[in-house]
Amino acid sequence: MDSKQFRKYAHEMVDWMADYLENIEDLPVRSIKKPGEIIAALPQNPPQQSESMDTIFADFNSLILPGMTHWQHPSFFAYFPANSSYPSVLAEMLTATMGAQCMIWQTSPAAAELEERMMEWIAEMQQLPEGYTGVIQDTASTATLCAILTAREKVSGFDVNENGFTGQKYVVYCSEQTHSSIEKAVKIAGIGSQNLRKIPVDEAFAMRSESLAETISKDKQNGLIPLCVVAACGTTGSTAIDPLEPIGEICKKENVWLHVDAAYAGTAAILPEKRWILNGVELADSYVFNPHKWMFTNFDCTAYYVKDKSALLRTFEILPEYLKTREDNQVNNYRDWGIPLGRRFRALKLWFVIRSFGVDGLRTKLRNHIELADQFRNWIESHPNFQLLAPVPLNTVCFHYAPVGSTLEEQNQWNAQLLEELNSSGKMYLTHTKLNGVYTIRMVIGQTSVDKKHIEEAWQLIQSFSGKV
Amino acid sequence: MDSKQFRKYAHEMVDWMADYLENIEDLPVRSIKKPGEIIAALPQNPPQQSESMDTIFADFNSLILPGMTHWQHPSFFAYFPANSSYPSVLAEMLTATMGAQCMIWQTSPAAAELEERMMEWIAEMQQLPEGYTGVIQDTASTATLCAILTAREKVSGFDVNENGFTGQKYVVYCSEQTHSSIEKAVKIAGIGSQNLRKIPVDEAFAMRSESLAETISKDKQNGLIPLCVVAACGTTGSTAIDPLEPIGEICKKENVWLHVDAAYAGTAAILPEKRWILNGVELADSYVFNPHKWMFTNFDCTAYYVKDKSALLRTFEILPEYLKTREDNQVNNYRDWGIPLGRRFRALKLWFVIRSFGVDGLRTKLRNHIELADQFRNWIESHPNFQLLAPVPLNTVCFHYAPVGSTLEEQNQWNAQLLEELNSSGKMYLTHTKLNGVYTIRMVIGQTSVDKKHIEEAWQLIQSFSGKV
Repeated sequence: MDSKQFRKYAHEMVDWMADYLENIEDLPVRSIKKPGEIIAALPQNPPQQSESMDTIFADFNSLILPGMTHWQHPSFFAYFPANSSYPSVLAEMLTATMGAQCMIWQTSPAAAELEERMMEWIAEMQQLPEGYTGVIQDTASTATLCAILTAREKVSGFDVNENGFTGQKYVVYCSEQTHSSIEKAVKIAGIGSQNLRKIPVDEAFAMRSESLAETISKDKQNGLIPLCVVAACGTTGSTAIDPLEPIGEICKKENVWLHVDAAYAGTAAILPEKRWILNGVELADSYVFNPHKWMFTNFDCTAYYVKDKSALLRTFEILPEYLKTREDNQVNNYRDWGIPLGRRFRALKLWFVIRSFGVDGLRTKLRNHIELADQFRNWIESHPNFQLLAPVPLNTVCFHYAPVGSTLEEQNQWNAQLLEELNSSGKMYLTHTKLNGVYTIRMVIGQTSVDKKHIEEAWQLIQSFSGKV
Repeated sequence: MDSKQFRKYAHEMVDWMADYLENIEDLPVRSIKKPGEIIAALPQNPPQQSESMDTIFADFNSLILPGMTHWQHPSFFAYFPANSSYPSVLAEMLTATMGAQCMIWQTSPAAAELEERMMEWIAEMQQLPEGYTGVIQDTASTATLCAILTAREKVSGFDVNENGFTGQKYVVYCSEQTHSSIEKAVKIAGIGSQNLRKIPVDEAFAMRSESLAETISKDKQNGLIPLCVVAACGTTGSTAIDPLEPIGEICKKENVWLHVDAAYAGTAAILPEKRWILNGVELADSYVFNPHKWMFTNFDCTAYYVKDKSALLRTFEILPEYLKTREDNQVNNYRDWGIPLGRRFRALKLWFVIRSFGVDGLRTKLRNHIELADQFRNWIESHPNFQLLAPVPLNTVCFHYAPVGSTLEEQNQWNAQLLEELNSSGKMYLTHTKLNGVYTIRMVIGQTSVDKKHIEEAWQLIQSFSGKV
């Protein structure tokens, strides 16, 4: 393909892209394909000869597109969103074209310095306390792993990095509701899942800080070393907000690293009226949230903040001869701020998004989502056959269908069935969790283009389908 | 921004993109900006109000672009390339627009099944032995960490994941020339850099397998447990090829996991005449190479192959309630195949690239690069004042300026100066390493659009500048 052909096809793609996003509501949200259907339609062997982009693009439309779950569909209420937006897609086009590898300042100075400034902008937007330094990571899973590793090295005096584990007995703490990535990180870091304490939660599914204090104290008595507490600002199940202030006080007293995982909910901290969700973050050692979830910035883009930057760098730094540059002492070489060496230019889409929306524009979007969730919560609470299953601090509504007189067993079965039928309709996509043994439907109202009509339609559909299960 | 505006700006960007790649040779390869220059031009605070895309794009052109190092410039001979290509950029445009999160089959069935098929295509293109299963990862650093963690779990009977380290004394092996990511992985995994043995290399900078055998044997006598050998198929310094066959035999005999890191060089294995570089990979447990380096596929896209898929999955699997789907037993849920939970749709660009080039088209490109390197090597070897510093199995030429009668100290100083002046000229970008204490200039001829005239110009420039140092 030459430049002329590229220009032609890229213009064609742009029209496809704009059409796709304009007409996305005509597509089933969750793919209707069955396991194995798509791969069966793909040739087993790679083509020897070049194929035309017309053929490839036609196959994309006929084979791949019907197998996609449409994350940008306004009726995508599943998991947490992976939001995109027009300015973000524009930035991704430029990023892909420049194809810069941003491991070192010298390999893309503008990427390194824009990243630094974007992390400052976000810190200001969220009123983060002085002393936090930010870096973009791929996912919150990786950032949480970085936090636990940095804690491990700081407490061991960087000895595990040097000599491996030599009898250190570290313990990590999170709530029963915390994300599975904490357990994954504890395993990877060589601490072991048996040394992850899952602290009980209160009726709002937030960590009981007094239980945390007791557990830490008991572990200390048993000769173990409390290493890190991972507090959730917005659990995956129900966006419960762990009480950061008492947790932070305990961590200060016990000299334990506090990592705040606000992967989804963190975006809301740019709203003055929701900034309370981060109250106590000033007591934390690290903080993570994902602009790629609810801040209209394409996946992947995770904002990771840390107070002790030098401990982070010392945990990850490597400096072989072939990576040395003349500016090493003057600049941020972000390769030393996390796990992978290679890094995409991810600050550009943040810059495009923040400037194109403006802080006010971002706030308007978020407030709309929160209001829609409030409306939806009202509907659930006012209906005799539905029940709210968790508080709604932001825009995730946890509920189930529970007709009067039904048993828990019946309810669990019906709700699993209801979810599957709603999703199979193609009209909306929801996912579930379990809260106190109750099969819980999660309705997350945070998609970039979701509006009142989508939640009205969703609510109609939920009522109508629930009558049939 | 609405759909109409998006369409307008996206078309504008496409023209910029095509123009950029057409005229990239007019730009300095390495950015001429000084540390701090770019950030000083960026506002300290985020904008409250929305800004127009015209303003944002104008700022991109005036503030960001001059601060970029142009990785797609044909005279980018530094590090290893992070190649892109027209079909790859087209795929990235679609990927960004759909914004699908590919953690689970259900969240993007087509992405999961296309990934499976692409990994099969590449296995066929590289004649990988039966039994290898592939998955796309972000970088080779992460894939190597996955290999070491899987080895750790397999040898410990998955006990480190469960209970943490309880006295296991593991040792990992690589050559003196192996990439810094191995040391990083050994630290992260809790093994410790003191337990990484750097095996001496031969005159071609390849691992001495007899030294490996001796070191493993000695470690065993000392009660240590040899865990994993990381063999380099193409070291970062000089693309030295470790002898996989004898290394593999040793690993089989000693029951040690063999991981083959072919991050850059692996692409060459699609050439029948270069497939020898992977001779012995059939004895390995895992293998990684980066289509995002030399296979014209945008960063990030790493192909990681493993023989014991179940050990990989058991090392990383997590299954909280909110991630359970009805198809869990029938499909690949790639979240369990590596560290991050969230994943971009990266198979699409591979599909576009392999089909648009065709296997023959890819081979033609690679052969051209290898021929150009052969030409360049000839020039170096024929010139009395230059010296080749390592064999050239593929397309990386290691050399230095060494006029007759000069001392090593003078040569090292002159070559550092030569490199800096060449790079400051903006006409080309080279990086260095040290081989046997000799400051070595690395010339990697693998950029997508590099051609004879670029290496001729480079050679002219190198000769002319060397006269001045």
